[in-house]
Amino acid sequence: MSSLQFTAEASANGVLERDFTVVGLPETPGIPGVLWSPSSDAAGRAPLVLMAHGGGNHKKHPAMAGRARLLVTACGFHVAVIDAPGHGDRPRTAHDEREVAELFRARAAGEPEGPIVVRYNDHLAELAVPEYRATLDALQGLPQIGAGGPVGFWGINMGTAIGVPFVAVEPRVTAAVFGQHWPDALAEKARQITVPVEFDLQWDDEHITRDQGLALFDAFGSKEKSLHVNSGRHKELPRFEADSAVRFFARHLGGAAGASA
Amino acid sequence: MSSLQFTAEASANGVLERDFTVVGLPETPGIPGVLWSPSSDAAGRAPLVLMAHGGGNHKKHPAMAGRARLLVTACGFHVAVIDAPGHGDRPRTAHDEREVAELFRARAAGEPEGPIVVRYNDHLAELAVPEYRATLDALQGLPQIGAGGPVGFWGINMGTAIGVPFVAVEPRVTAAVFGQHWPDALAEKARQITVPVEFDLQWDDEHITRDQGLALFDAFGSKEKSLHVNSGRHKELPRFEADSAVRFFARHLGGAAGASA
Repeated sequence: MSSLQFTAEASANGVLERDFTVVGLPETPGIPGVLWSPSSDAAGRAPLVLMAHGGGNHKKHPAMAGRARLLVTACGFHVAVIDAPGHGDRPRTAHDEREVAELFRARAAGEPEGPIVVRYNDHLAELAVPEYRATLDALQGLPQIGAGGPVGFWGINMGTAIGVPFVAVEPRVTAAVFGQHWPDALAEKARQITVPVEFDLQWDDEHITRDQGLALFDAFGSKEKSLHVNSGRHKELPRFEADSAVRFFARHLGGAAGASA
Repeated sequence: MSSLQFTAEASANGVLERDFTVVGLPETPGIPGVLWSPSSDAAGRAPLVLMAHGGGNHKKHPAMAGRARLLVTACGFHVAVIDAPGHGDRPRTAHDEREVAELFRARAAGEPEGPIVVRYNDHLAELAVPEYRATLDALQGLPQIGAGGPVGFWGINMGTAIGVPFVAVEPRVTAAVFGQHWPDALAEKARQITVPVEFDLQWDDEHITRDQGLALFDAFGSKEKSLHVNSGRHKELPRFEADSAVRFFARHLGGAAGASA
């Protein structure tokens, strides 16, 4: 049975940030994570959004902290993210080193990154899915979150590679934001997902073709799904899509921003 | 030179609604329209959004009044729409009657509506573009709007059939929301449009195929363009896309909702 150990705490501008370690997973050292919450706990229980970071990044990347701040301040939600295997404060295996070296080699040689990223992310997702489930177990043990409350998932790029297989097997997640990934290893699992989905892709992505991006969106089994396409290259996803994702979670998980969203 | 004659006025919940007639177009009787504005004119000049209604509808259809109310109350903008030729309070010609009868016949027979709608809307757009330009001239003659201020355009379905050729030739329009139309008569004109565009399409549209919808989005020459796809049939465009369009105009035309949009 997994549980959380809090290791550090800081508070600024209405947001409480607590570092934690998830312990109790068989054969896995503690997994470092961070939980952002409203500074005032007067509100009682609130919905939780689990996030997953992009490839090569970590749990406290500005994209993670920025999205968390939006969700906490606009909706009063709790937001948690853990370092992916081989990322952030977690050790890299020899396999991680080989795959990262292979990715850098392909990039320098001007070869397509897709085949390497798809294969490596699929490997990381296999490790990460049980870690996310154990993290959710542990977070639901906190009185401010509790079991049975609304849970969302938000992950783009590698966060989608981890999130699609996670949400496919995790009935506690009731709404998800994904985007910007190849369909190869994910389409079959996306078909098992039936909760509302918002999906982002870039129309001029130099790595993921339009057909590949549209195929993954099309695969979701959800009755209610939205695709947001923006002009621009892979790394140019507009900042306003984060605001849109926050409104999506407000609509589907409830919360202060729900009424006007 | 065209000008506005106001014919009726009503005010409710912070929104002033004024019926008007555009007069002064050669060989065209007065064109009936409606202008929605903030009840309080203390704010001085404000941006204008021109709208165009859908096929078979009219200037005061609930979709028009609802979108106008959002723009006026959230952004403090002026919003105007005119009846399309053969629609609302305007006379139908024998040509209108024939085309409408042909559309109903095709619909009853289970034949595709697309070829008839594309052809008829193209005809209406040819008439409507000079009418929209004259309406904009007249509206910019009002002191609360003025010349040189920001102007947006918002039209879906037939509103897109009219709006794409209008915006293509009208440099005063600096941001536009379109959606849900076939590319056939419009793609070439869309290529001339370079202002920011938000475009809606329905993933399960029974009239417009995915490839047709995506082709029209792709055609826009705009550096900044966003596509919002939602699951559902032709008439199931979600209500939250109206909120999204309002945020789009707030971002691009300025106004009260711009800061958080």
